[in-house]
Amino acid sequence: MNHPKTWTGRVLIGVSLDGFIARSDGDIDWLTNPPRHPHQLVESSRHAQSWATFFPAIDHLVMGRGTYEKVASFPEWPYADKQVIVLSTTLPDDDERVVVVRTLERACSALVQGGARQVYVDGGQVIGLFLRNGLIDELTTSHAPVLIGSGLPLFGALEHDIRLTLLASHATQDGMVHATYRVERPTPAL
Amino acid sequence: MNHPKTWTGRVLIGVSLDGFIARSDGDIDWLTNPPRHPHQLVESSRHAQSWATFFPAIDHLVMGRGTYEKVASFPEWPYADKQVIVLSTTLPDDDERVVVVRTLERACSALVQGGARQVYVDGGQVIGLFLRNGLIDELTTSHAPVLIGSGLPLFGALEHDIRLTLLASHATQDGMVHATYRVERPTPAL
Repeated sequence: MNHPKTWTGRVLIGVSLDGFIARSDGDIDWLTNPPRHPHQLVESSRHAQSWATFFPAIDHLVMGRGTYEKVASFPEWPYADKQVIVLSTTLPDDDERVVVVRTLERACSALVQGGARQVYVDGGQVIGLFLRNGLIDELTTSHAPVLIGSGLPLFGALEHDIRLTLLASHATQDGMVHATYRVERPTPAL
Repeated sequence: MNHPKTWTGRVLIGVSLDGFIARSDGDIDWLTNPPRHPHQLVESSRHAQSWATFFPAIDHLVMGRGTYEKVASFPEWPYADKQVIVLSTTLPDDDERVVVVRTLERACSALVQGGARQVYVDGGQVIGLFLRNGLIDELTTSHAPVLIGSGLPLFGALEHDIRLTLLASHATQDGMVHATYRVERPTPAL
């Protein structure tokens, strides 16, 4: 630019939790005209979930092949005291640390048979599948202080909007903003 | 599903501020290995910008045709005491409430000539253009408690990552989580 920048450029913008500023047709009713809804009063003392509060309570994990292969490449298997279910149509069933299942139905069956109580659902595709089937109860996001411009979108396409109830929120010294939500059952698009 | 759901499904996931969980190739180094960086200590007493703190300080707005046409359709023009620049290659220059410019260069020239100090940059495409050119200093996002699944992504593609410094964050009773960032100058992709 040939002009001195003598001014401060500022932005204030509403965003869906999954990162969209409007529907594809430009509609922002989901932002400007949300249903009346009893969110928790968010006190500064009410912190969102963190690894330290979240992970110890977990007894089962469900993940897809991509997440499994990443974790399996680590020097140490981090889930030794957890039951791990891998949902994949292609992964060979040859790792005795995990149970490989081929369908969502089988995953749910394995969870019930295993006496699951607190299930950590991980991986964008598996989270999306569980969300679309009403199987996620609580969602914690940690937004990082960076714009990367492109990549794999959070959770992907949904048949219906999914409303969330904010339970808690806090920021940490690394610039992350954490928020924990209760996931409401899917409702028809507003 | 034929199985009783006897368990709680839970998610804990890192997300870029623009809504991505990984780069297109699966890389999450931007999340797991960020540069050391002095974020503000976020006190609960340090609130993010809101319309009430943001808008009165603004003297100029820059927006694209889409945002202009939406605002022009309102019963009352909301920017009567502000200078408004519309950046569009196609919009006729026949509304004396605004200055229409055809290029970013002209927009910057008009801002300097107008003595701009605090510039509200609005609309996804114009924000993206200003961001890519290092012309945004401060960014406030308000994440709504809803997943909509698809739409117009926040700010769009970038040539480089843009690092942000968290300045303040708070939640409101409507379930929105607000965060204000200082925009660091673009750096090569990490």
